[in-house]
Amino acid sequence: MTLHITNEVNATLNSYIEGGNYNAVMVLVDENTRQLVLPLLPCLNNAHIIEIAHGDRNKNLDTLVLVWRDMEDCGATRKSLLVNLGGGMVTDLGGFAAATFKRGIDFINVPTTLLGAVDAAIGGKTGINFNGLKNEIGAFAPATAVIVSTCFFPTLPEQEFKSGFAEILKHTMLYSHVKFALIQDFDFKNIDYEFLLELLKDSLLAKQHFVEQDPIEQGIRKALNFGHTVGHAFESKALSDGKPVPHGYAVAWGLVVESVLSHIMLQFPRTDLYALARFVRENYGAFYITCDHYDQLLDFMRHDKKSSNGEINCTLLKECGNPTINNTINEDDLKAALDIYRDLMGI
Amino acid sequence: MTLHITNEVNATLNSYIEGGNYNAVMVLVDENTRQLVLPLLPCLNNAHIIEIAHGDRNKNLDTLVLVWRDMEDCGATRKSLLVNLGGGMVTDLGGFAAATFKRGIDFINVPTTLLGAVDAAIGGKTGINFNGLKNEIGAFAPATAVIVSTCFFPTLPEQEFKSGFAEILKHTMLYSHVKFALIQDFDFKNIDYEFLLELLKDSLLAKQHFVEQDPIEQGIRKALNFGHTVGHAFESKALSDGKPVPHGYAVAWGLVVESVLSHIMLQFPRTDLYALARFVRENYGAFYITCDHYDQLLDFMRHDKKSSNGEINCTLLKECGNPTINNTINEDDLKAALDIYRDLMGI
Repeated sequence: MTLHITNEVNATLNSYIEGGNYNAVMVLVDENTRQLVLPLLPCLNNAHIIEIAHGDRNKNLDTLVLVWRDMEDCGATRKSLLVNLGGGMVTDLGGFAAATFKRGIDFINVPTTLLGAVDAAIGGKTGINFNGLKNEIGAFAPATAVIVSTCFFPTLPEQEFKSGFAEILKHTMLYSHVKFALIQDFDFKNIDYEFLLELLKDSLLAKQHFVEQDPIEQGIRKALNFGHTVGHAFESKALSDGKPVPHGYAVAWGLVVESVLSHIMLQFPRTDLYALARFVRENYGAFYITCDHYDQLLDFMRHDKKSSNGEINCTLLKECGNPTINNTINEDDLKAALDIYRDLMGI
Repeated sequence: MTLHITNEVNATLNSYIEGGNYNAVMVLVDENTRQLVLPLLPCLNNAHIIEIAHGDRNKNLDTLVLVWRDMEDCGATRKSLLVNLGGGMVTDLGGFAAATFKRGIDFINVPTTLLGAVDAAIGGKTGINFNGLKNEIGAFAPATAVIVSTCFFPTLPEQEFKSGFAEILKHTMLYSHVKFALIQDFDFKNIDYEFLLELLKDSLLAKQHFVEQDPIEQGIRKALNFGHTVGHAFESKALSDGKPVPHGYAVAWGLVVESVLSHIMLQFPRTDLYALARFVRENYGAFYITCDHYDQLLDFMRHDKKSSNGEINCTLLKECGNPTINNTINEDDLKAALDIYRDLMGI
């Protein structure tokens, strides 16, 4: 997989289309990216357009079948290319469609959201939701290339932008104490896109660092799950209550709970915990829970892909830049951490 | 992937189950292997049984969804094991189910048919039929282990046995002239299982030779497609006529046509061509076609996964043991080869 971080998206994509000797080029879009992004990429003028409905609730088998059929109907072969132009939903589903069509064709991801750029576009994770579970069916399949830019972000709604920023926050905590200090001053009201491009680059390099050491997630790559065991549980609870929350918001709240656990179990510094909690509270608000919800949340965590034998498993930090994977969390510590989370968030 | 060629199937499988630290073991069977084979493997007494309907027409998305759901319902995690116990349909579909469940869990293939042992069990090809096309959706995913034996073969119907034997015939032609001479005396009426085990071992080593050099089929592995471009077209035609033929029979007839092409284009020796045609005619009969069917057959070949840009692509032999891949076949040569095929087969 080749990672490009550039605002010359059309030229970069075109070099693959021209040089790849493909007998067909297809582009997967949702209604938003078809309208707002596709017209900015003239190299795709002749591509066969496959449009799907946007949103995580459509990241399912029915949509996947439509994409497979559409690829079939337009005569795609093993020598065809699929360009995935959209957020994480489009790159996840499109990546899985490409990875499994005729046992795998080339695909290029062009993430159009901040979350897509930092979370879903590298690492080779593809998949769909199934049976009510997120990313339950999928594969590890590297894209031929990923083209990351900031040029599509100014049009993002604030909530979606912040959602993506939570993954940058996570990568920064995993990778460097110095950067974590810098990021605390990020101003969402007055975004510095130069600074953002730098943050994004650091963040992607941090992610690539972990992924390259461990492409199929048997060891250190699990560091990237920091915040996600609890975050996914918040997300699942919100979904089951019929009030879904953005993925990145759930991750931000998950980072706070797992930083509390890091403090309890590994002496993660109190000052960093307070700084994180302040940043999340001021920019993301809080996910409201009471102690009556603890058992339900623990149940979601036990069923997480990252857990086994019914034990809850988290990545935790000794300090920023120093993660440890495979921490088994006992129930009492987790409930204590949820208590402290509520305290820190003022709920 | 570890390949075991042994009749100690239970002990071999048990060593994986005991040593693998799995939190759940599942076994995928069809109604035949549940009744005839599962009772022979006491190490699976406590496994969760997933039963599917046998036959290639059930190698589809509906069956795959049932398997995914069943794995979900029995609480399988990333640390669970799926044992695929059956013919190529079970190992193909089960392999794909395992490769895509939570982005991939361990699976072990125990092929119970000759065809499954030589064709489907190694090489990492998994998949299902889709939209009327064979193996249209799938992935390259290596099993943790494949356990090949001859102990389940004596119960196979003659037609199924012969179907599997065609792949041995193909591997022998690809790999060695000496073995090709030996195999011509194989007596289906009075099977020598010792000799068969030897042939099977040679055949699998030949296949592994090509697969290991080229795991994702970009080059020399395509040698294994010998006989299959034409064979698949015969198979598709038979299917569309509502008179399906066994896969291996189609391959045997495909070997004859592609050997004729090898003779026309690459001077494959006439004596070997005659010997092959005699062996196939005597043991497999002939697939009946007239010149009125040529255009339909060519059309199937142009839509084959192995073709691109509408060109027909075959592996051919200069001589036994000396394959060349990526031969583009022109229409006149192909029609001439089909004429000669009809001549050689006496139709």
